[in-house]
Amino acid sequence: MKMREVSEKDRLFYFERHFFTLDGLWMIETEEETDWKTALKIDTEVWKRLLKIIIRRLKKYLNLEENSLANLIEILTFRWSVEKWKYEIVKKEPDEAIIHVEKCPYHEIMKRNPERHDKIPLICKDMCIPFYEDIVKNFNSKISLDRKKYQGLGDPICDFHFTVEE
Amino acid sequence: MKMREVSEKDRLFYFERHFFTLDGLWMIETEEETDWKTALKIDTEVWKRLLKIIIRRLKKYLNLEENSLANLIEILTFRWSVEKWKYEIVKKEPDEAIIHVEKCPYHEIMKRNPERHDKIPLICKDMCIPFYEDIVKNFNSKISLDRKKYQGLGDPICDFHFTVEE
Repeated sequence: MKMREVSEKDRLFYFERHFFTLDGLWMIETEEETDWKTALKIDTEVWKRLLKIIIRRLKKYLNLEENSLANLIEILTFRWSVEKWKYEIVKKEPDEAIIHVEKCPYHEIMKRNPERHDKIPLICKDMCIPFYEDIVKNFNSKISLDRKKYQGLGDPICDFHFTVEE
Repeated sequence: MKMREVSEKDRLFYFERHFFTLDGLWMIETEEETDWKTALKIDTEVWKRLLKIIIRRLKKYLNLEENSLANLIEILTFRWSVEKWKYEIVKKEPDEAIIHVEKCPYHEIMKRNPERHDKIPLICKDMCIPFYEDIVKNFNSKISLDRKKYQGLGDPICDFHFTVEE
């Protein structure tokens, strides 16, 4: 009678469900113990570092070599699919890509909790927007990201328009 | 060209790896922005709440009805197997169970980081010990947990000895 056996499905259930819960609990408890501003500052630092680690790990996991636009899209859409975002790849060319995000789990979680509604535009402006600018700049300085629509600010989608400088 | 496809294996890789990283980053950044005492207090609150949620979700996921010792062992060993702990179920009877934990991922992560070595006994005493007391008490007040060995305090294993009051 050594150890209980578990399946891949069991393991996925556990980690997926508790990944989002863990992140939410840290934010709520940090705000409780300090204040909103401090909690947001810590949350931003955590996610800036986590996203750097995620990009690096996924690049390796997907066996990608170059920091091309195509590979950046590979990494981002891998993460989005894994996290069950709803999005459409509208255009995917070597020097230009357009993606429309219809749903992201972070926005959905906040929408479900009325107490977090007033925080949605702040998370959008202070976290999501700078995070993606940061990701793109760090990945390849020749890639530009232009965003004009934000669900967190009331738009029906979030748009991501990537171009590569020649 | 709608969305990128990912497999269950991809999803498990992503959530498992980043679950532990996310938790570690929150702790480190909270300590950086506040201090060790505040960070430990928040970490303790987060995990006390998370473990309650985990127990509740796993009880439902595993279709368990009663709060018996057998079901508590089912839930705990499910979580430990999912998180890749190394343990041995030494005894599993309706009114008594003994489990020896040889490795837990939280201790392993701290052991790998020399800067966290001095924190191991504190995490052991201020988090792990009260957490399991709390879990057992909340699950069924007739179940008692007696622990005498703690890896975090220098023992070669952590022992869990459960008994049920008649």
